[in-house]
Amino acid sequence: MNAPSALPSYTDVLAAAARIAPQAHATPVLHSRSLDADLGCMLSFKAEHLQRGGAFKFRGACNAVSMLGDDGGARGVVTHSSGNHGGALALAARLRGIPCHVVVPEGAVRSKLAAIEAQGATVHRCAASIAAREAMCEAVQRDTGAEVVHPYADPRVIAGQGTAALELLREQPLDVLVVPVGGGGLAAGTAITVAAMSPATTLILAEPAGADDTLQSLQHGRRMVDFTPNTICDGLRGTLGAPNFEILRRHAPEVVAVSDDDTRAAMRLLFQRTKALVEPSSAIAFAVVMANATRFAGLRVGVVLTGGNLDPDALPW
Amino acid sequence: MNAPSALPSYTDVLAAAARIAPQAHATPVLHSRSLDADLGCMLSFKAEHLQRGGAFKFRGACNAVSMLGDDGGARGVVTHSSGNHGGALALAARLRGIPCHVVVPEGAVRSKLAAIEAQGATVHRCAASIAAREAMCEAVQRDTGAEVVHPYADPRVIAGQGTAALELLREQPLDVLVVPVGGGGLAAGTAITVAAMSPATTLILAEPAGADDTLQSLQHGRRMVDFTPNTICDGLRGTLGAPNFEILRRHAPEVVAVSDDDTRAAMRLLFQRTKALVEPSSAIAFAVVMANATRFAGLRVGVVLTGGNLDPDALPW
Repeated sequence: MNAPSALPSYTDVLAAAARIAPQAHATPVLHSRSLDADLGCMLSFKAEHLQRGGAFKFRGACNAVSMLGDDGGARGVVTHSSGNHGGALALAARLRGIPCHVVVPEGAVRSKLAAIEAQGATVHRCAASIAAREAMCEAVQRDTGAEVVHPYADPRVIAGQGTAALELLREQPLDVLVVPVGGGGLAAGTAITVAAMSPATTLILAEPAGADDTLQSLQHGRRMVDFTPNTICDGLRGTLGAPNFEILRRHAPEVVAVSDDDTRAAMRLLFQRTKALVEPSSAIAFAVVMANATRFAGLRVGVVLTGGNLDPDALPW
Repeated sequence: MNAPSALPSYTDVLAAAARIAPQAHATPVLHSRSLDADLGCMLSFKAEHLQRGGAFKFRGACNAVSMLGDDGGARGVVTHSSGNHGGALALAARLRGIPCHVVVPEGAVRSKLAAIEAQGATVHRCAASIAAREAMCEAVQRDTGAEVVHPYADPRVIAGQGTAALELLREQPLDVLVVPVGGGGLAAGTAITVAAMSPATTLILAEPAGADDTLQSLQHGRRMVDFTPNTICDGLRGTLGAPNFEILRRHAPEVVAVSDDDTRAAMRLLFQRTKALVEPSSAIAFAVVMANATRFAGLRVGVVLTGGNLDPDALPW
């Protein structure tokens, strides 16, 4: 899977789009006159928090599950995930009627865990480290024969995530597109789509300053895997995957790191003006625009709102 | 204005729809497969939290401001409001380029007050009672010559609010339509629209148990004006207006009171499943459906989500 030959292409993204079309939502693109006026640019928000399962992750999970053969499919799928990929894979597996196992690390958001269980998946708890997650995932794979669908390094997942930018660029030509980066599934898929479909569009990856391994990795030309994330963006704490690094190195998008305070401010302003309340891991892409408004002045700026699975029990009302 | 002859008609609603069309949003209707499955009915949510200004109130305010003559218009408008009507009138006045004065009682939600000021209106603070609000409103009217646009008793406002149900029923035939009731602008406008356009549709008004003056008023055949509201639904603490009472008495909708706990549960579930985070004063309409699910089984149920102007600074993230 990590060999260069296995890296997905734009053809894979187009095939994924056709494959997931019967089940995934073509999510709407949101606009706000008042935000455009405040920031001096033309914003287009791709509303992936309105995707099935509440996050873009359903695109990749649905593509991977749809590509399983009848034999593989019957034994089900397994993954490790702190949240949205687990819920998305569980939903995709349920729709196909196959078993799903999700390895969930300690510290995962409670409501995301509940969503995985509500889709009928079997949950396996483990320690929070990437090593513990991958070891448990392998153990479940051995025991059940289920096929591993890695949350961001799987080429089927990367190709599926690339379909969000495909839909957005078909609807709205853009000068700049900003997407969050964590493990790099969306980032890599988007890089492939943008390069093939709209090479004049600048791709910017938004990363938490407290988990800026992608920024470091692309700067130093090698994948940084030894760091301790410190950010409210629970979906962006993972380490950039190996194939994701390869794809990003080829396309060389810019990475902009922002503070959690910037992300919180973006979350609040976006909610106030558009009524879209999204996860910190999503709001971070808009935070990059807010924190660098002069740079985006006059431009057509796309922002992927990646997910909205906040814990409803945390609401103060 | 309170004389029966001044009560608005369906013709006034249709005229309002044409009048506000250039400026108001035709808001989307939201659906959720998972909520339909859970509750056993077919839900259609009219997303007025996505209306301009974040609430249905812009419909009535825009209609009233559009109907001002050139002479009256130049002297501006004045109203009293704890929130969304004030912001809506301020927006409508700004779009027409005329002055707007808003009398805001103590205890109003801070972010709603900020929204009124952000639209360029002049804010006048007063005590929280209806008497204090109306006295201050009259004083401003005397001083400025501005025209009073009452938040819910004004027939132009009632006609404007009736356009939300008009749009919803044109898009989606309904067995039942549930809307919140506070002062009764939306309730009365909706009653007029439903009676004329879809008389087979049952209209249900959702009211907080801690401010159930509409329930009491319709039961006893006279308007109850002496009560102390106790509810988290800050938009529904007002007293049913006199013309609103007259209109509702004629159409005799059912009123269902629910607890604030039911409203909170509805707010959370709606957010979880549709990502629409609305005010308690809006979620209460869905709370009526949740708390009486067997009654709605198998029916096409419309719910007006009236507003989403929650204070972003209260968010826990």
